[in-house]
Amino acid sequence: MDENKYPILSGIDSPEDLKKLKKETLPQLCREVRSFLVNNISRTGGHLASSLGAVELITALHYSFSSPCDRMVFDVGHQAYAHKIYTGRRDGFSGLRQLEGMSGFPRPDENIHDAFIAGHGSNSISAALGLARAMRISGSEGRAIAVIGDGAMTGGLAYEGLNDAGAERIPLIVVLNDNGMSIDPSVGGLSKSLTRLRVKDRYRDAKAVYHRIVDTVPGGHALNKVLGSIRDGVKYAIIPNTFFEDMGCEYIGPVDGHDINEMLRIFDQVRNYDRPVVIHVITRKGRGYSFSEEEPSKFHGVGKFDVRTGRQEKGTGKSCSEVFGRTLCDMAENDSRIAAITAAMPSGAGLCDFRRRFPKRYFDVGIAEEHAVTMAGGMAQGGIRPFVAIYSTFLQRAFDEIMHDCGVMGLPVVFCVDRAGLVGEDGETHQGLYDIGMLRQVPGMEIYAPSSESELETMVRRAGSAVCPTAIRYPRGGLNGVGDYSDLTSVCLREGGDITLCGHGRTVETLLEAAKLLCAEGISAGVVKINRLFPLDMETLEPMLGDTVLVCEETSDAGSVGIDLAAQSKKTVVRQNCGNRFVPHATVSQQLEACGLTAEAIALRAKELYRGKSR
Amino acid sequence: MDENKYPILSGIDSPEDLKKLKKETLPQLCREVRSFLVNNISRTGGHLASSLGAVELITALHYSFSSPCDRMVFDVGHQAYAHKIYTGRRDGFSGLRQLEGMSGFPRPDENIHDAFIAGHGSNSISAALGLARAMRISGSEGRAIAVIGDGAMTGGLAYEGLNDAGAERIPLIVVLNDNGMSIDPSVGGLSKSLTRLRVKDRYRDAKAVYHRIVDTVPGGHALNKVLGSIRDGVKYAIIPNTFFEDMGCEYIGPVDGHDINEMLRIFDQVRNYDRPVVIHVITRKGRGYSFSEEEPSKFHGVGKFDVRTGRQEKGTGKSCSEVFGRTLCDMAENDSRIAAITAAMPSGAGLCDFRRRFPKRYFDVGIAEEHAVTMAGGMAQGGIRPFVAIYSTFLQRAFDEIMHDCGVMGLPVVFCVDRAGLVGEDGETHQGLYDIGMLRQVPGMEIYAPSSESELETMVRRAGSAVCPTAIRYPRGGLNGVGDYSDLTSVCLREGGDITLCGHGRTVETLLEAAKLLCAEGISAGVVKINRLFPLDMETLEPMLGDTVLVCEETSDAGSVGIDLAAQSKKTVVRQNCGNRFVPHATVSQQLEACGLTAEAIALRAKELYRGKSR
Repeated sequence: MDENKYPILSGIDSPEDLKKLKKETLPQLCREVRSFLVNNISRTGGHLASSLGAVELITALHYSFSSPCDRMVFDVGHQAYAHKIYTGRRDGFSGLRQLEGMSGFPRPDENIHDAFIAGHGSNSISAALGLARAMRISGSEGRAIAVIGDGAMTGGLAYEGLNDAGAERIPLIVVLNDNGMSIDPSVGGLSKSLTRLRVKDRYRDAKAVYHRIVDTVPGGHALNKVLGSIRDGVKYAIIPNTFFEDMGCEYIGPVDGHDINEMLRIFDQVRNYDRPVVIHVITRKGRGYSFSEEEPSKFHGVGKFDVRTGRQEKGTGKSCSEVFGRTLCDMAENDSRIAAITAAMPSGAGLCDFRRRFPKRYFDVGIAEEHAVTMAGGMAQGGIRPFVAIYSTFLQRAFDEIMHDCGVMGLPVVFCVDRAGLVGEDGETHQGLYDIGMLRQVPGMEIYAPSSESELETMVRRAGSAVCPTAIRYPRGGLNGVGDYSDLTSVCLREGGDITLCGHGRTVETLLEAAKLLCAEGISAGVVKINRLFPLDMETLEPMLGDTVLVCEETSDAGSVGIDLAAQSKKTVVRQNCGNRFVPHATVSQQLEACGLTAEAIALRAKELYRGKSR
Repeated sequence: MDENKYPILSGIDSPEDLKKLKKETLPQLCREVRSFLVNNISRTGGHLASSLGAVELITALHYSFSSPCDRMVFDVGHQAYAHKIYTGRRDGFSGLRQLEGMSGFPRPDENIHDAFIAGHGSNSISAALGLARAMRISGSEGRAIAVIGDGAMTGGLAYEGLNDAGAERIPLIVVLNDNGMSIDPSVGGLSKSLTRLRVKDRYRDAKAVYHRIVDTVPGGHALNKVLGSIRDGVKYAIIPNTFFEDMGCEYIGPVDGHDINEMLRIFDQVRNYDRPVVIHVITRKGRGYSFSEEEPSKFHGVGKFDVRTGRQEKGTGKSCSEVFGRTLCDMAENDSRIAAITAAMPSGAGLCDFRRRFPKRYFDVGIAEEHAVTMAGGMAQGGIRPFVAIYSTFLQRAFDEIMHDCGVMGLPVVFCVDRAGLVGEDGETHQGLYDIGMLRQVPGMEIYAPSSESELETMVRRAGSAVCPTAIRYPRGGLNGVGDYSDLTSVCLREGGDITLCGHGRTVETLLEAAKLLCAEGISAGVVKINRLFPLDMETLEPMLGDTVLVCEETSDAGSVGIDLAAQSKKTVVRQNCGNRFVPHATVSQQLEACGLTAEAIALRAKELYRGKSR
């Protein structure tokens, strides 16, 4: 590390080093951390804007508390890069989110200072409460600290955690890192209420006004005295938010999240609280780098970018989400019953155009997948056609709602399962490998997977007149396949007598490549593409299959179509998928390689199977 | 219906009939409804106490609003019997929860006045919001009304719904039916806060005091005027709860839920509100029948009982929940790391003794399965051994938390999956048929099923030193099997060369019976019992299986062990299970019959398979 560029930061290899600094040095340290983050992430990509906003907050936390004796749980973890820097992982940033490099999220198996996994939002309060209770039971010293964003506060899990914590006098410190954003701006009633709180000067002014009145109006003091407990009510009148106190937690705030001294003072104050406290800290997402301050959403998760211009490298440009969004807009134009629902992912899910064009039929419910699905059930029951666009990994949150609030009544809610399959750099916590296994538990559900953009469009259109819960799963990025076979439940794309390669979605293209490789080696491989993954249409499918079938999929094994096919088919069915394990961060190509799902690996496996059989 | 006994009620066949009554008649009607409920449920069993508490509330709702133009969504639906009575289903009560009889919950396919399904808690606000939005989009008249208990308000889904509703000016009416209970007394910070609200007289008194002060203190009026918005704060000072207002909803309450006139007045007032409003109604669970008023928990879900003495028919006495609870107490005695977690089901899950004996290691988190699991993950990460006892059907709520907050880190959280398999009278929404299919999606998970109480005990004990997420699933009621084979992953209980019957849990006993029936017909059937359902230990299992295997299970087909076995085994594997459908309410025996899972049906199926093969 360049000691000239980072004179203070270069000496920080642990939280202990940080604690040795003088308080006055901390603002300079924060500047160095920001510069370090911008420079590194411009080269690797990563989650920039949230982490820039939380630099002073994390600095103050590590200066004030003592990890790992005190356990810090970061919600989602997009914000935690400064924490990674202070805990001996500066050098890890050159390999951020790369194969065998440092994870983008806190991970207990990566570092002793990472108290809990982060990836899906809203879990930090519950996890920290569990850690706090564990400490209490085992009699160990230390505090549990949850750092949660205002976006993650929309999640019911966070509320359940607060509600439980509030019932008990247990020393839990919840830092609400409020930047008014999740990935896109936060939504919901509470968020509006927090916004009012954010205007803290108004509170201070009003309090002063009150006391001036009491001092000057005749009889004011008498009244002030007589009012008793009512006096405390003044606070609520001006800052009409007792949400956290009603949940049984102390509330302190709002606090300027870029003022280290103020935060240190407050952390010091709550250090020995014997009850849960919520510290409401106001930060600015993207702080300290002009481009990310101006467009924090654009700098939430970034690819490589030019530090001087803020210009980001463009992706391939292909995007299933966009195709979905465009198709849904077309449909909505002609069918007034079409509605779109997202859980805090309007841009990610391709719904920005829909939001602009059909604001009355567009619903962003915040990080609240459970509610998104049940609300969709209500809409469908009311005759509307809701399309719920949620990433595969986050849809897991709503399994019961899909079952109970859509499945039991057989409601035609359409689940647009984005980011299905391997997702790359976000790693274990974000892989879309389990949706098929989850969704086919729901009686009456139909699951489709397109292999081309044209098929995606057709499947979305057809779902507009579905008579049952329907899911369409498509990957991150685009689909390179061509043609549209979506009027069939399965289709044979290539005849071949020696072995059948079978798959769905974007894997089909790889299968066609593998078949060519096999052909070059004199092995005749058929390729069968499954369009409807559940229920399998065995009547159509079975005759397309040769004696030996290799089913290749970007799914877990337990969640594979192959396991269902193997159980139903009379042929020998072999499965090549991601197995029953968590697939770590890397590029998608590297993950495909690790799972044996490249054309070469599939051809090799097929060859072995064919030779083994013919021997 | 006896017109002498029910002079008013006997004339009510629809909400229209109710509306024709004079207001003064309503209290008499309520008395008749209570008498009708007590008499009928004493003969059929059902959910008595909640429904008794909500008689005036539901009477006022139907008197004031116009179903089905106005859509009433009842949370859980335990409370909705009076609604069933008023909507033409009086006669249904003789067949309540019986095969082909009336469901115990609202069901849109049963009656036009049932706006949405009810079964799992906390879904009503989201569903009603969806209905409200559907009405707005389609331009239809009508209001959406959610009736939710204070217990269900602990669920994050309810919070997510409120938060979304509060952000928008949409006419949604939420009636919070607060009786301080879910099944057992409600828990959580919010619940405590609601309890403070319940003391409404204090509020009224204090308000009067304030106005007297303003009137009498010199300068009081001047101050009152100057204070401006602060004046409204008085309300919060005395009733320190603005929880709902902070979420963006109007709050009205507390209202006496047994005072029909007061409720009618308030419903009238909110009828044309253009924004969401929460009406906080205080009721008494079990009201109007002395035995259920005294012990509402005991009369939550009842079997048949004697109306005069309140004495309930006793069950078989056997209970897996009790065995689990007793075992866990034993373990906790010797191991200070053992903790128990329940989501509002201390008695149902067999944890009352544990609560009494180890209060510091017992955690009831309320209706909040997601939080229960993530909090357990936090505890496990802190070195504690949490046992999370949740019914199979409710565990669906926590799929993502099991995956993300326990699975990814491989934490040794033990899931005690109670009410696994067919559950009887609660029907579709409560069947425990999907847990295996859900849990085996989680990489690293191990799933066990005992067939005897002794095995249950051993499995629970062994899970105390598990090194990975572990699930133990057991049925409602007891296990009649004998012996303990739980040191094996699978065991052959009976040799037989013609066909192998294979299963797990309580089904094994039925398989042994079926084998005897087959034996009498000259067919030699083996019986193989699987103890570890996932991952299957094929090395042990495969050699035990004959050429043809019939796997019989109380699970859905997609969630069956059979589908996994069929995919892995080289034998011919045939599955007999509950299929991919929802199994409606009836007794467990009737449901087993409907699913072909009686000894006779299994023997018949096996015979067909054997004959078909030998032909």
